[in-house]
Amino acid sequence: MPITGRADPVSQRTANLAALLRALRSGPLSRTQLAARCGVNKATVSSLVTELSGRGLVRPAGMLTGVSGRPSQLVELRGESAYGLALGIEADRFSALATDLAGRVVAERTAAADVVTLGLHRGMDELAELAHDLLAGMEAPPAGVTVSVPGLVDSAGALLRFAPTLRWRDAEIADLLAARLGLPLAAIAVDNEANLGALAEAHARPGVSDLFYLSGGIGIGGGLVCGGLLQRGARGFAGEVGHVTVDPQGEHCPCGRLGCLETKAGLPAVLRAAAPAEDRLHDPALGVDGRARLLRERVRQNDQRAVAAVHELGVALGVALSTVVDVLDPDVIVLGGYLAELGDWLIEPVRLELGARTLANHARCRVEASSLGTTAGLRGAAHQAIERLFTDPTLSPLTEEAQA
Amino acid sequence: MPITGRADPVSQRTANLAALLRALRSGPLSRTQLAARCGVNKATVSSLVTELSGRGLVRPAGMLTGVSGRPSQLVELRGESAYGLALGIEADRFSALATDLAGRVVAERTAAADVVTLGLHRGMDELAELAHDLLAGMEAPPAGVTVSVPGLVDSAGALLRFAPTLRWRDAEIADLLAARLGLPLAAIAVDNEANLGALAEAHARPGVSDLFYLSGGIGIGGGLVCGGLLQRGARGFAGEVGHVTVDPQGEHCPCGRLGCLETKAGLPAVLRAAAPAEDRLHDPALGVDGRARLLRERVRQNDQRAVAAVHELGVALGVALSTVVDVLDPDVIVLGGYLAELGDWLIEPVRLELGARTLANHARCRVEASSLGTTAGLRGAAHQAIERLFTDPTLSPLTEEAQA
Repeated sequence: MPITGRADPVSQRTANLAALLRALRSGPLSRTQLAARCGVNKATVSSLVTELSGRGLVRPAGMLTGVSGRPSQLVELRGESAYGLALGIEADRFSALATDLAGRVVAERTAAADVVTLGLHRGMDELAELAHDLLAGMEAPPAGVTVSVPGLVDSAGALLRFAPTLRWRDAEIADLLAARLGLPLAAIAVDNEANLGALAEAHARPGVSDLFYLSGGIGIGGGLVCGGLLQRGARGFAGEVGHVTVDPQGEHCPCGRLGCLETKAGLPAVLRAAAPAEDRLHDPALGVDGRARLLRERVRQNDQRAVAAVHELGVALGVALSTVVDVLDPDVIVLGGYLAELGDWLIEPVRLELGARTLANHARCRVEASSLGTTAGLRGAAHQAIERLFTDPTLSPLTEEAQA
Repeated sequence: MPITGRADPVSQRTANLAALLRALRSGPLSRTQLAARCGVNKATVSSLVTELSGRGLVRPAGMLTGVSGRPSQLVELRGESAYGLALGIEADRFSALATDLAGRVVAERTAAADVVTLGLHRGMDELAELAHDLLAGMEAPPAGVTVSVPGLVDSAGALLRFAPTLRWRDAEIADLLAARLGLPLAAIAVDNEANLGALAEAHARPGVSDLFYLSGGIGIGGGLVCGGLLQRGARGFAGEVGHVTVDPQGEHCPCGRLGCLETKAGLPAVLRAAAPAEDRLHDPALGVDGRARLLRERVRQNDQRAVAAVHELGVALGVALSTVVDVLDPDVIVLGGYLAELGDWLIEPVRLELGARTLANHARCRVEASSLGTTAGLRGAAHQAIERLFTDPTLSPLTEEAQA
């Protein structure tokens, strides 16, 4: 299945094909049900289903026997017929994840790496190698690729403007990967890890339309879903709450100001508060996940310094999130990244601060720890990558048989 | 034109009628142009245009002579064929405004009132009287009514939960007005003044899709448009930034906390900073507008105490808005309500605070004074009221002639 690099607006027929494909996400449907769901007449549905079938995306799925009339043929997604590829860049590792049309994980790879030392070009070589390794086991190229990055991405979704933890500026990630993977540029999107994490968390909560996702790592990022849609803001920087002031008399932040959320809630700051400088807790070789798990163990064993550090973290998060709640009134705030590991001890102080600092009605906002942890960005990226096919099913070519 | 109280989902044909009507907002179009814009075939467009014409909503508008082929008949909105009614409730006055299909103001009324003393039921009597006075001059009932209120409205848009400046709680405004105006309940919506102001400001800036509107009055409200849509949040409270902490060591706020934005930016607080207690500046008889204009005069005449008070106001706004910018990354922040009067002296300190407190890239966010001032909420309400017809044109009945 070759990837085509189309950019022109989709036609009405393509939009109808996409509507049918999306409707089938919730399970098998008959042609009559599809016609009703998609607002298209039944003759058109039959022709659209024939095309989707020719493109290998759907197949027959038994009969529906209704309360009246003849039994009708059901159609379902051919989940395994296509997949999206997610690539992840973090300061200490590269990741690759493929999910199929039904959202199932079909392949996964991770490689530890010192990305700052590697720099952009050698880093892209290593990421491409990881991706090649995964793609070698697949029968066809991916329907789309989305790269999750810990930094600010321009709104066109191709250029990483600034990633402080990687020390990369204006990195043309999509171009560099397109060349290395032999894929068209249009098939590769780059997006902020916290935005993608917000998408993944919203996707995991079907009834929720307003959500704020806070991503904890070396830095602090955030992403917002309002009215069911990911909001990127005018320049793609929405959700960047790492430099909200939580303590006007606080520590200096590398950004030049005092008491930013990151000076209290970035993983290094929390670890400094939790243990002396020579402690194993600060070992970068453990990675973000490893250090967070070790901190969690200390808290669980009631290490007083660790307990106090995590409580103080919860208060700082609550101070910053109280304004987020005032501005957005979300259904849910999700604590993600390394914060998810500490959820059991963070949710209470965050809720107390929200209760003390926001209008009474706002206190009803739920606060939850992410169940996806540090993989939320990658899961969101996989979701975005396969979404490309749900927007334009003609990216999946007609089989020769169907064309004949 | 009787209002019908329909609530059932609109059919495909109704959706197509609505799409045509909305397409005509930008100016006259031919049937071929309408077909292309709306993704509907030309035969269907002809039938839809006939129906819209039968409902009195469109009319012929001359011929279009293209580069090739025969000249084609243009169709345009019949702007004067329908109107929406906006009603405004503020602590010191009631207002009514009617705008037609083309957004032109066709009638306007204001009445000073001490709404707190009147209470809910007598207040609704007076508002209904003002509305009756305006409606008496119109040939038909309105296509829809939207009431702008300075308080929190539940997401269904009928119940005013809490309006601190009016001292109303759980006020069933839509029900009370429906009975007094003899209109169906479904035709009357109630919405927050700042949300409606945000809509009006976004409507006045066609290229802008991410906007934050700050509404200054006795209290401080806010509304947000993200991705081109008004965002109300999970419970309808999005944008409520009046109680964001701007000075942790600041004055007590009636809400029970210290240093909320309202303690620095609510009109009474600014006036107290600007002049001694016995000064004419505090005369409630001047209304919000009158006191803001008097303050503006003082600043213009370089009254040092007034100048300092307005500068301090700008700093407090900048502190609160810096978090809004971090969370939302808007194209524009609009200073509305009484703040608009002081725009010339507020924009600079707000911009300086934003520059000092947000990531460098965020400093590109524009800060503008509203040109609608304290009427933004009412203008937004009128826009929402007529919008009802652009969502369901069948609310405008077929003329007897067209039915025959």
